[in-house]
Amino acid sequence: MFALGVDPGLSRCGYGAVRNAGGRLSVEAYGHLTTPVDDPLSERLGALWGDLTQLLADLRPDVVVVERVLFQVNARTAMSVGQASGLALAAAARAGCPVVQYSPNEVKLAVVGYGAATKEQVQRMVQVLLDLADPPRPADRADALALAVCHLSGAGLRAAAGAAGAQP
Amino acid sequence: MFALGVDPGLSRCGYGAVRNAGGRLSVEAYGHLTTPVDDPLSERLGALWGDLTQLLADLRPDVVVVERVLFQVNARTAMSVGQASGLALAAAARAGCPVVQYSPNEVKLAVVGYGAATKEQVQRMVQVLLDLADPPRPADRADALALAVCHLSGAGLRAAAGAAGAQP
Repeated sequence: MFALGVDPGLSRCGYGAVRNAGGRLSVEAYGHLTTPVDDPLSERLGALWGDLTQLLADLRPDVVVVERVLFQVNARTAMSVGQASGLALAAAARAGCPVVQYSPNEVKLAVVGYGAATKEQVQRMVQVLLDLADPPRPADRADALALAVCHLSGAGLRAAAGAAGAQP
Repeated sequence: MFALGVDPGLSRCGYGAVRNAGGRLSVEAYGHLTTPVDDPLSERLGALWGDLTQLLADLRPDVVVVERVLFQVNARTAMSVGQASGLALAAAARAGCPVVQYSPNEVKLAVVGYGAATKEQVQRMVQVLLDLADPPRPADRADALALAVCHLSGAGLRAAAGAAGAQP
């Protein structure tokens, strides 16, 4: 099973591709897509669509794992994150990929074992679980890898089902 | 000048294409795109992307006028509207169309002359301005036509600039 995690964002859209081969997780690719902050919104979203489509064509994941966007304090940011998430979901569907979504809390619970984990804890746990030399930075990259890990480990599913005791 | 107004939505995405020929406004097409409410979110967004892309290819507008999404009381609806607006903006950019956005209040001020106009007032004024036999229904269609009218009449620009006295 080969999962592509996507942490949607307009200025920075994290992605992380993780393969589960017989229970062993390995990273195939990770990084983030950016759009120029000074460009018009429509141009930025158009560019992000192109990049997401290319990424899906290059990686051909079995499943795309997209963070479920929740409303945040900053309404302006939440809207652009929502718009970016719409593109990620639609691009995956257009590429014929199944899509699953997890909330940030579900991912933290699955990967760190604690729904209110800090960004640093997620970065550190992703580093350990995926045997990386350094914690993935910036946080968008770690979050995208954590989404893929959450799905591949099945811990996300257990968390979603409300089962207690998910462990890192 | 040929403008395509888009009132973004996942369950119902209104569109209205209006031509301004020497100051005379005429409707070329209007309607709404729908996605099956029981389908997964990613499938619905993927289908909406396909429909929007096809619409832009069929109509080839000079400009796409998209409602600026504001936060609403219903957070769940606002997020799906935001996701749909992201698709409309990105699809227009990918089709090479310039994009402008107006808030609902700017459109009402431009078309009805009153920023807090009711949906019925917008429907009625769009009917009159575009010489339609009946008020466009449902409201998404009228709102999409009103977006195009707002841009083509220039009233939206005046309203945006804060000039008082925009008249229907």
